[in-house]
Amino acid sequence: MFNTVTIIGVGEIGGSLGKDIKKRRLAKTVIGIGRRRSSLRKAKRVGAVDGTYRVNSMKRGVKDADLIILATPVGTIVELGRLAAAYAKKGAIITDVGSTKKSIVEGLEKALPGHVCFVGAHPMAGSEKGGPESATADLFKGRDCFLTKTKRTDPAALKEVQRFWKRLGARTILVSLKEHDRIVAHISQMVHLVASGLVIAAGDALPYAASGFRDTTRIALSDPGLWKDICATNDTCITEALDRLIAVLKSFRNAISKKQSSRIGSMLAKARGLRRELCRHC
Amino acid sequence: MFNTVTIIGVGEIGGSLGKDIKKRRLAKTVIGIGRRRSSLRKAKRVGAVDGTYRVNSMKRGVKDADLIILATPVGTIVELGRLAAAYAKKGAIITDVGSTKKSIVEGLEKALPGHVCFVGAHPMAGSEKGGPESATADLFKGRDCFLTKTKRTDPAALKEVQRFWKRLGARTILVSLKEHDRIVAHISQMVHLVASGLVIAAGDALPYAASGFRDTTRIALSDPGLWKDICATNDTCITEALDRLIAVLKSFRNAISKKQSSRIGSMLAKARGLRRELCRHC
Repeated sequence: MFNTVTIIGVGEIGGSLGKDIKKRRLAKTVIGIGRRRSSLRKAKRVGAVDGTYRVNSMKRGVKDADLIILATPVGTIVELGRLAAAYAKKGAIITDVGSTKKSIVEGLEKALPGHVCFVGAHPMAGSEKGGPESATADLFKGRDCFLTKTKRTDPAALKEVQRFWKRLGARTILVSLKEHDRIVAHISQMVHLVASGLVIAAGDALPYAASGFRDTTRIALSDPGLWKDICATNDTCITEALDRLIAVLKSFRNAISKKQSSRIGSMLAKARGLRRELCRHC
Repeated sequence: MFNTVTIIGVGEIGGSLGKDIKKRRLAKTVIGIGRRRSSLRKAKRVGAVDGTYRVNSMKRGVKDADLIILATPVGTIVELGRLAAAYAKKGAIITDVGSTKKSIVEGLEKALPGHVCFVGAHPMAGSEKGGPESATADLFKGRDCFLTKTKRTDPAALKEVQRFWKRLGARTILVSLKEHDRIVAHISQMVHLVASGLVIAAGDALPYAASGFRDTTRIALSDPGLWKDICATNDTCITEALDRLIAVLKSFRNAISKKQSSRIGSMLAKARGLRRELCRHC
């Protein structure tokens, strides 16, 4: 599919992409760019990339790339994307894997030179662990990958990026920036904030936590720096989603404190009904 | 350990207890009592009980029992416990597996005749599925089982019940009624209410839910009738726990809406630190 793919950021997602591209022979050469020498070494050792460059050698790392994938933490994507674009060859496609889209896509569309195309992407995959040592081929198989379309999105580049994710086994979902950020606030960022919230609120009951609590709160082990940026760049949608969740929890609270057994039952039954509709795939 | 054990309620927990008792030969005979003929038949078929009686034949089902285990939904335990006690032989021990303890233990201690002893118990095990078809031996192995101690708890009966749970491989934790109900509000009932809350709040984002959201909300598939009673019988502690959780989510909300990146980061870091302390066993 490509001669050279350059992946900027060789953590769990970037590393998995490299492994997957090599496994499926989607590129002749996979280059990894990173900040830390140790991560780049690990990424090469686990077979995620063929060659590596540090961020301060950006030019040498991106100049031959047909596809440049920004796979660094959300807070650094716009800056690194601008840097990469400056050295990218004419017609190169730049894409990303960031968990929030409005701030990243608008930030890059404003800044990028005309000789490259940018397509925003967000695969719904990854664990709380992170790092190239967690990289696995097939991480994206059967997963959803959001692709964003704006007025400035180049149709041919979008098609190419879509083809790329499909080759990795992902289902692609085309959305607007707003739609994306609203959806992931509910289905991803709420799960994370609630996990952290449960842990903090549990106080001295925490040591008694059983497997259910442990499973639900495992995601609270994720890197706070990464998630802080995700929250900060999707502030409007997360605030709205939190307000809705707090309102639902308050109505549970009021029904329970008033011992309104049948109201509690019908709220729980409503939730079960909605959750069952998701069960086709679970 | 016992000649006859009678289990009232042959769902997932009751059925698993029966299988486990038979597997470890802790009783010569295991009797199952239930409301529905179909559940009793299933329980016998899966090898959870030797003989079965319907609830209206309570007398015949409990008269020989050395240990009577109440494993029905929380809302029915007190009533069935009183009924069973009326026919129980002198010196029989009655115990339960209910998820809330104050209302059950106080309800039964007030009502039970002097010729039997009652010890409250709550094993932290079970899935969202329920039913005798979900019963598995070894369900309690490595799990915590709370045992409650009150002024009226008979020390010898408590020791016997403790020995029973240890033989099933559970870790027993001795607590007061208040302690128990406060702990499980945080580590169990919050997880359930939050799962239901996330599903309801997600609205039209729900169909996009990825594996993380699905895992966290799986418990919202549990029987609403069962959980409605759990909420209603632990109303004070759940209300307090919800108030604490809502307060934490509100402070996330305010930090995020004000884009206070470092405050968000330190809340997430605090949660990660607390969650890591749980990791000895995860």
